[in-house]
Order: sequence, then structure tokens, then C-alpha cells
Amino acid sequence: MLTLLFITNIAATIAFAISGALVAARHRLDWVGFVFMACITGIGGGTLRDTILDVPVFWINDYHTIIVCSVSAIVTYFATQHISKRSKALLWADALGMALFTALGAQKAMALGMNIPVSIIMGVFSACLGGIIRDVIVNDVPVVFRREIYITASLLGASTYCVLHTYTPVAEGIALIMGGTVAFVIRALAITRNLSMPAHEGLQ
Amino acid sequence: MLTLLFITNIAATIAFAISGALVAARHRLDWVGFVFMACITGIGGGTLRDTILDVPVFWINDYHTIIVCSVSAIVTYFATQHISKRSKALLWADALGMALFTALGAQKAMALGMNIPVSIIMGVFSACLGGIIRDVIVNDVPVVFRREIYITASLLGASTYCVLHTYTPVAEGIALIMGGTVAFVIRALAITRNLSMPAHEGLQ
Amino acid sequence: MLTLLFITNIAATIAFAISGALVAARHRLDWVGFVFMACITGIGGGTLRDTILDVPVFWINDYHTIIVCSVSAIVTYFATQHISKRSKALLWADALGMALFTALGAQKAMALGMNIPVSIIMGVFSACLGGIIRDVIVNDVPVVFRREIYITASLLGASTYCVLHTYTPVAEGIALIMGGTVAFVIRALAITRNLSMPAHEGLQ
Repeated sequence: MLTLLFITNIAATIAFAISGALVAARHRLDWVGFVFMACITGIGGGTLRDTILDVPVFWINDYHTIIVCSVSAIVTYFATQHISKRSKALLWADALGMALFTALGAQKAMALGMNIPVSIIMGVFSACLGGIIRDVIVNDVPVVFRREIYITASLLGASTYCVLHTYTPVAEGIALIMGGTVAFVIRALAITRNLSMPAHEGLQ
Repeated sequence: MLTLLFITNIAATIAFAISGALVAARHRLDWVGFVFMACITGIGGGTLRDTILDVPVFWINDYHTIIVCSVSAIVTYFATQHISKRSKALLWADALGMALFTALGAQKAMALGMNIPVSIIMGVFSACLGGIIRDVIVNDVPVVFRREIYITASLLGASTYCVLHTYTPVAEGIALIMGGTVAFVIRALAITRNLSMPAHEGLQ
Repeated sequence: MLTLLFITNIAATIAFAISGALVAARHRLDWVGFVFMACITGIGGGTLRDTILDVPVFWINDYHTIIVCSVSAIVTYFATQHISKRSKALLWADALGMALFTALGAQKAMALGMNIPVSIIMGVFSACLGGIIRDVIVNDVPVVFRREIYITASLLGASTYCVLHTYTPVAEGIALIMGGTVAFVIRALAITRNLSMPAHEGLQ
């Protein structure tokens, strides 16, 4: 179980880092730009979560995350065309990462004694803010706002975990898996069926 | 007095949240985008203020703010046209909010023993950073830089409070009201007379 | 030695503040916008470094930095044309500032017991994030990503300091000077010979 969690976590971080590096490729940055964007995307959400919760930032004592992000960036630099052709695989790794970060972010907040609304927000922040910062730095409107049902999936997954954890006697591990599964399944449905939330018709 | 403060605070938060939701409407986001932008705008300034001051972020233990922002976002989603026609009302609620957040932000810093320059900055950050983050996320140049005398009003209001609090025997409540009033009156004059600071002529 | 450090620090802060004010000039902001952009650029990197390291933000107790930034902004407001003609001088002051902030940022992290990868990142963040925030606020793609060898110079300078500090018996002062010198020399070579890292060819 712990090994599975560890592997999923690494896979998720790699997926996020590659998405950052691909944005660097689109803007034709040099290799340091690749590493920078990969790290920002991979650790941005968790960094803000930990700063707001006022606990030590997670990668301060666990620098493997930074190394994983940097290596992913370098590999992407030399294999961009190859990787961007694998965009289906990336999309699924990213979905997995979003689901995992959602569940773990909400759990971390609950374990620190936060209430439900705050914990849900922390789950969403962990999963979505890295991508938002990535896009804002290079002046794109964040894709998580546009892409089919991304923040929504994270929101529902985090809510599932928090409700199960608080109001039912379900074991911690089960609640985590349920929360992550809800987020992943909703996102997977959105990807495969090309679903999206109705966009607002805008201001006249 | 406390009730009045509480009501003004809610009104200010609603005004800020609606301004975030209207930006979401202009960019045709879905309802989750509305909630996200409303929350970022409503709590962004105070979050950065508390992070820099290294005190618990204010909405962690008072999640009513988040619920107020979310509900404002949903209402705006269904009543955009109606609300954007009321933009005069919004402008005044926002001015009230700016004045209140300015005074309360500066007070919080002073109460923590900060010096005057830092406390003034904290007042300005509380009032203005939420709007800056809102605009930066969707890639607009922040309106608070362009709009008639916004940051300036906040700066003068925060300075008024800090000077009164530090150098005069005026009661705390009076200093707060004076600070907020200065910020509000300057902003109100700017709105009604369409005043703005001279813009720099730019680089040749 | 301490005096030299102090003077370099002030010079660096002024260089960074002026670069923020010049961006404000290009976007024709008013004088408050100048002060705001100058402060954000001058203190942004160190603020994020200290927030992530969870130590008191450096300008909280040393408000001279804020005053230096504000005065630089006002002077720039009235002397833009004059200053932007001195852009060579600015470029060198900025290079000096980058080198100094890199070494001091890495040193602060090491002194707090951080490991090498984290300390290197803190050196780079101190030197580069202020400029990134400056550009992101006004919706430019950060120049540090484009300009000839900027983040790279910072990265190598921070690495030099951290390696010397950790693996050699070299005195602290020497390690600092070596780290700063490496960053400065690389940046100086890039400026004088117009070198840049090869940009990625982009996505097809």
C-alpha cells in the first residue's frame, strides 16, 4: 500500500513536471527555463498549501521531489517531440496525479485539525495551483479553468474524502482511496466523453 | 459598533467576490471558475498579509468568508447581466471594502508590533492584492494600477491610521474610523469627479 | 568587509527597484504604481524565500529596504529618460545584485540547516523571483527566461557556494565571495559577449 502510494506520487509529480516542461518548450525557453517551469508546476500547489497551513514546506526535507522534477525537465528537453506525441499517456498520468494530490492535500489539512471547507480547498489547491502558476507565468489563461472538468473533479474528490473522514467510521485508507477514485473517475469520464461544464455565456 | 464592523466586512467581501466572479464571466469560465475567482479575490489580499506577518491565515479558522465568497459567485453566475447593470452599487461596495480592509490590515500589523512603513504596506496589501491577483490570473494588467486613485487612497488611509495610532492619544476605534474614512473619501472623490493621478508619459 | 557588503546590498536593491520602476514607466502607471512595482521587484524574491523557509520576512524588521525601493521609484519617476539612457550602468548594477542575492540567499538557507538542493533553489529564488513577479504582474513573459544566461548564472553561483561551504574547509567569507563571483563572471561574460543558452526549438 505504501509502495503503491509512493509510486503513484512519483508518477504524478513526473506528469506535472512534464506538463511544465512542455509549456517551456512551447515558449522556446532554454534548459534552465525547462527545469524552472517543471519545478514550479510540480511543487507549486503543495508549496502554497503548506505555506497557508503554516507547516514546513514538503520539499524542504524531501528534496527527491525537486530532483524528480529536474530530471523530468531535462528528459523532456531532449525528447519533446517524442513526449508530446505521447500526450494521451500524459493526460492520464496528469489525471492520476490530480486525483492523488487532491486526496493527500485534503488529508494533510484534516490531519492538522482544519475544518471541512478549508480541507476541501487545500485538496483543490494541492492539485490545481501548480498548473495555474505554470500558465500565469507564461501569460496563458490557466487551462484548468478551460479544460473539461478539472477543478470540479478535484473539488468533488476532496469533498468525498472529507465527508467520509468526518461523518463515517470508514478507515482512513478507504476514505483516501474513495476520494481519489471519485476525482479520477469524474476526470476520466470528462476525458473519454469530452464532457465539460457549461461555460458562462459572458457579459453583454 | 461591532455589528456595524461585521456587516461592513461582509459587504466588502461580497463586493470583492462579485468583482472576481464578473471577471470569470468576462472570460466565460464555468461555475467552478466563478467560485475560484471569487474566493481568490475575496481572500487573496488578507492571505498574503497573514503569510508575510507569519500569523494564522484569517479564513483558516473563520470559514464564513469562504462560504460568503462561494455563494456570491453562484448568485453572480445566475444573475450576471442583472448585477453588471448595478455596477454603480458594486463600485461603492468595493470602495467601502477597500477602505475597511485598509484600516483593518494596518491595525492588524500595528497590533503585532510592526513599525509604521510595514503596517502601511500591510493595509495596502490587504485592500489591493486580491484585485491584483484576480487580474494577473486572467492576464489583464491590474485595474488597481489604472483605475482612478485606488492604491493611493488605500495608502493615505493606512498612513492616517498608523500616524494617529502611534503619535496621538486618539482612541483605537477613532483612529480606525479616521483611517477608513480618509481612504473612502479620497476614493469617493476620485469616483464622482473622475479624478486620477497623472500617468507617467512612458519611455521614449 | 561588512560595509562593502552593506553598500553592495543597497546598490543591488536600488538596481532591482529601478528595473521595476522602468517597467511601470513602460506601462504608464502613476507614481504609486512606480512605488508598488519597485517594492515588488526589490523585495519579492527574498519575501518568497523567507516564507518558504518559514523565517521572519527580512524587510519586516529592516524597513530601510522598503524606503530604498520607494525613493528609487520616485527618483525614476522624475528621471526616466535620463535613467533609461544609463541602461548599461543599470545592467551592471542588476548583475551585481543578482550575484549578491544569489550568494546571500543560498547562505541563509544553509545557515538554517537546509540541504544543498534546497539551498541552491533559495539562492536562485532570492535573485530571480522578484524579476519574475515584476514581469508576470504586467503580463510580460519574464525576461529572466529570455535574457542571456541569467538564471543559469545564479544557479551556478549558488551551487559553487553550497559545494564550497559543505565539502571544503574554505572560510565562510571566501565561499560567499566565490559563489557571488562565479554568478557575476558568468553573467558578465553573457552580457559582454552576448552569449545565451541555446533555446529549445519549440513544439511542432
